[in-house]
Amino acid sequence: MHLAKPSINQYIGEISELVGGRLESFLPEGWEVPESLAKSMKYSLMAGGKRLRPLLVIAAAESLGASREAALPVACAVEMVHTYSLIHDDLPAMDDDDFRRGKPTNHKVFGEATAILAGDGLLTHAFYSAVQAARQPGVKAEEVLAIVEELAVYAGPSGMVGGQVADMEGEQGLTDLQRLRFIHEHKTADLIVFSLKAGGRIAAATSAQLSALETYGRALGLAFQIQDDILDLVGDEAKLGKKTQSDVKQGKVTYPYFLGMEASRAEVDRLTRSAKEAVTGGSIPNPERLLDIADYLLSRDH
Amino acid sequence: MHLAKPSINQYIGEISELVGGRLESFLPEGWEVPESLAKSMKYSLMAGGKRLRPLLVIAAAESLGASREAALPVACAVEMVHTYSLIHDDLPAMDDDDFRRGKPTNHKVFGEATAILAGDGLLTHAFYSAVQAARQPGVKAEEVLAIVEELAVYAGPSGMVGGQVADMEGEQGLTDLQRLRFIHEHKTADLIVFSLKAGGRIAAATSAQLSALETYGRALGLAFQIQDDILDLVGDEAKLGKKTQSDVKQGKVTYPYFLGMEASRAEVDRLTRSAKEAVTGGSIPNPERLLDIADYLLSRDH
Repeated sequence: MHLAKPSINQYIGEISELVGGRLESFLPEGWEVPESLAKSMKYSLMAGGKRLRPLLVIAAAESLGASREAALPVACAVEMVHTYSLIHDDLPAMDDDDFRRGKPTNHKVFGEATAILAGDGLLTHAFYSAVQAARQPGVKAEEVLAIVEELAVYAGPSGMVGGQVADMEGEQGLTDLQRLRFIHEHKTADLIVFSLKAGGRIAAATSAQLSALETYGRALGLAFQIQDDILDLVGDEAKLGKKTQSDVKQGKVTYPYFLGMEASRAEVDRLTRSAKEAVTGGSIPNPERLLDIADYLLSRDH
Repeated sequence: MHLAKPSINQYIGEISELVGGRLESFLPEGWEVPESLAKSMKYSLMAGGKRLRPLLVIAAAESLGASREAALPVACAVEMVHTYSLIHDDLPAMDDDDFRRGKPTNHKVFGEATAILAGDGLLTHAFYSAVQAARQPGVKAEEVLAIVEELAVYAGPSGMVGGQVADMEGEQGLTDLQRLRFIHEHKTADLIVFSLKAGGRIAAATSAQLSALETYGRALGLAFQIQDDILDLVGDEAKLGKKTQSDVKQGKVTYPYFLGMEASRAEVDRLTRSAKEAVTGGSIPNPERLLDIADYLLSRDH
């Protein structure tokens, strides 16, 4: 009997369930954690995220022949980092959002103090999770150290946190296209690039393979962000789980603001093609899922 | 010519200068970090800390024959973690402090958003710093991974962050002596224990040695916290850099509150003796500095 290859939707669903299940029990057995903290961390982890970054870790690992199981600790780690960043971004002193994906934000449910600490806890625990990759058969200590180092670089002051600072300063009307690009690169694309490279490292990727994954990730990450800007303007509010035009209302500069809608859409197309080219150059044995993901993201509506 | 061994004060001064100099240039050459973020992180790193935790990392490493240089990356890492925790602790939603050690707190100088992100940046960069230990000759990748894992455990939701949550909940009048001990163990002692064990791991400590350092650290860490409680009641305000009786005014329960001053002082003495016994059992070749440090902390007045 010939079995049909799962569609990209099925693949994404499978990975999402696998990662979700692992995150459900993110705190090891026997750890003494105050109940409110554990609840607060879990609330945001299980709040309906798309699991994009874990998907990229796993897809990259599998594209180079590693197992899904080997990639899971790092997949969970990156989702914890992404989740902590959302908790902190929503805080009153930051973006001051009461809702995210249609649900009350962490600090609205648990109070600001617990939310700050839940974010801190998730960021810290992400590094614990990443280290567990070294317990997987076939994954070397040196590779896991490289993954930990890169997580710190891409999530840190010259990466995601730096991007977030630049974004905040941008809200004071200081943004030109160059600064906008810096913000997109660091606030969003860096963690996406990390996810792909880390997945590669789980599979003991060569530098050529890491380079291909990095190029794919840079292009995809920027496309993702421009697509976000476009959807914020013209997306379906029910699907997005939030009101549109929030960027405009906040006076926030975006790609459509600078380039116009047509040129922004064209840029998303161009970047998606670029991403796919990067992983079909020959260094990646099985890039099919990476190509599927690029198309999937291109066509998303939320 | 016979050279006198440096006094404990000289030793502490030397280590403090060495660590301070390294922290001064904590961001690697060439890293693109928004200026406000870099300034905010540096402000708190260079705000006059005692460098106790780095001291313990280095003293533990040296007690087992490792070099100061080998221990420095991890010494810097733990000071970054300690510093991030102070920035976040001082935030309006948390302890809401305008001053620390006589200087304006981070958020008073840079604004709350930048302070939150500076804390996040320091926590993340601490892990980058810890990984650099693996570039030191003689330090194995597996040991550095163990250090990274322990940093995440001791600083995370079942460690320092958990202790901080419990402390906050304690402020709602729910504290008994058992909870107070939990708070002291996790909010403060965990990072101290981490510092000593990590210093040990830099020197490839045996499990007996790690165990001795852990026992020393547990006792010292608790003594340190009780001493803090005592100084808050009766210390010299000028030396402390803050008003005394702040715990009483906040209705905060402390060891002197539960046990009385005499019993609390006796407990500090007992724990200090315990700590010293732990490292003079024979497993630690050169425990002298660890003993000096225990006495030094016992006699401190700020």
